[in-house]
Amino acid sequence: MKLATLTVAGGTTAAVDIDGAWHALPFSDVGAALADAAWRDTVAAAASTAPIDSPDFALLLPAPGKVICCGLNYSDHILEMGRELPTFPTLFAKYADTLCSATDDIVLYGASDKVDWEVELAVVIGTTIVRGDRAEASAAIAGYTAANDVSMRDWQNRTLQWFQGKAFDATTPIGPVFVTADALDPVKGLAVSCAVNGEEMQRGNTSQLVFDAADLVSYVSQFTTLRPGDLVLTGTPGGVGMGMTPPRFLADGDVLTTTVEGIGTLTNRIRVAAASA
Amino acid sequence: MKLATLTVAGGTTAAVDIDGAWHALPFSDVGAALADAAWRDTVAAAASTAPIDSPDFALLLPAPGKVICCGLNYSDHILEMGRELPTFPTLFAKYADTLCSATDDIVLYGASDKVDWEVELAVVIGTTIVRGDRAEASAAIAGYTAANDVSMRDWQNRTLQWFQGKAFDATTPIGPVFVTADALDPVKGLAVSCAVNGEEMQRGNTSQLVFDAADLVSYVSQFTTLRPGDLVLTGTPGGVGMGMTPPRFLADGDVLTTTVEGIGTLTNRIRVAAASA
Repeated sequence: MKLATLTVAGGTTAAVDIDGAWHALPFSDVGAALADAAWRDTVAAAASTAPIDSPDFALLLPAPGKVICCGLNYSDHILEMGRELPTFPTLFAKYADTLCSATDDIVLYGASDKVDWEVELAVVIGTTIVRGDRAEASAAIAGYTAANDVSMRDWQNRTLQWFQGKAFDATTPIGPVFVTADALDPVKGLAVSCAVNGEEMQRGNTSQLVFDAADLVSYVSQFTTLRPGDLVLTGTPGGVGMGMTPPRFLADGDVLTTTVEGIGTLTNRIRVAAASA
Repeated sequence: MKLATLTVAGGTTAAVDIDGAWHALPFSDVGAALADAAWRDTVAAAASTAPIDSPDFALLLPAPGKVICCGLNYSDHILEMGRELPTFPTLFAKYADTLCSATDDIVLYGASDKVDWEVELAVVIGTTIVRGDRAEASAAIAGYTAANDVSMRDWQNRTLQWFQGKAFDATTPIGPVFVTADALDPVKGLAVSCAVNGEEMQRGNTSQLVFDAADLVSYVSQFTTLRPGDLVLTGTPGGVGMGMTPPRFLADGDVLTTTVEGIGTLTNRIRVAAASA
């Protein structure tokens, strides 16, 4: 099953894909749906409503409490960055403000000259989990979406901690849809890829993840509670701009496309605005 | 002026200290007060209400959207850790779940053997700030509180990113009160100190901060929006347990006291509970 958050008159609505058409659910967005343990009970009634014409994808999850990211999780990307395979997941945090929709422009304000791409599979939490084992973690995963952990490499590398290069407001696109866990198997493998102006930069497969979705959710839950709508980003494969010779970064007008098999494609234009905007 | 969040029948209330007595404000907590730009207008009316007897300090700010922390910001602590004085602030993120009150037990679930202390001055944001300069940052600071960035050094040092050792639920005490910016001058200097079972471990002064409160708020606001009630922790001086020879860490039953001059003292007992709790 696929859900999305769509723009409608006066705001947004969660919607469900039924036979290729989007039908509104009685929630403002997918995050609000997931927060209601009985959201699946509303799907049958949605089928009898008129489909939404020309769906306009809004921010899938506008207010997750946590967006926890794993770096260095694809073996090819780890080798590209000159590092060894890890014993523990390397984790950092984003806030909900960092997210933007599958079609939003990614607006920069002149602060960074090294804006890089990182296609990622994102895990969406469905039930609250505290210190859960792998089985409990699997059960807590509602499903998946796509993300691009757009990174300001100059800021990321100013200090030992990556956070400031990973936390620019409205620069991490997610979406376009949320796919329930029963419909996708990242361990078996989902192709993930990223292109700039149509030129493929990254291609990987989630079967290469050192720490899979259940590993990451269980690990994170050992120290902090995960709740419905929270996101865990699983890391990126090789092919980032920083790893190229010479390095390559995003510029004003570039179109970044981010694709995860079975989920869909994010299409975001880079726009450099005046710093005073 | 001093505000606090106090436990009352049925929940909590924001309160203001008037001549040494706490009077309820019409907000559930200090965060809710700060979210109302007109909160100061409610103080006069509070004076005519009966004071709250035996004030019981609850979590000062239960739900800040952001808790952004600066590491390596006191020159003595930087030297203690074997590092050079920084050009840019080293920043990492916590979530609201990481916070606990000035009197809460800090409950651990057996996951860490290296629980360390870090007294910090915490900046409390009063108005929304986006890409603000130093003057705008100063104006956006509502005031200050005390914090202890209790850190699980084993988890912190498992990978290059500190987040996982800094984000255990309910392990960062803040409070006991919020003091408005007009009443304190950290640049002129506030003594900060930390003791374990009454034995002083850390002593520093905010006059030694490499990046002061306005520097940090301005810097953070270049990449992410800060809003009323958000916290910026300013780093810790020398004397952490990890820096001792041999290293020294917190154990079950230890009492951690954390004091910032002009704000007050946090008193938190360490409690090691079963991992299954």
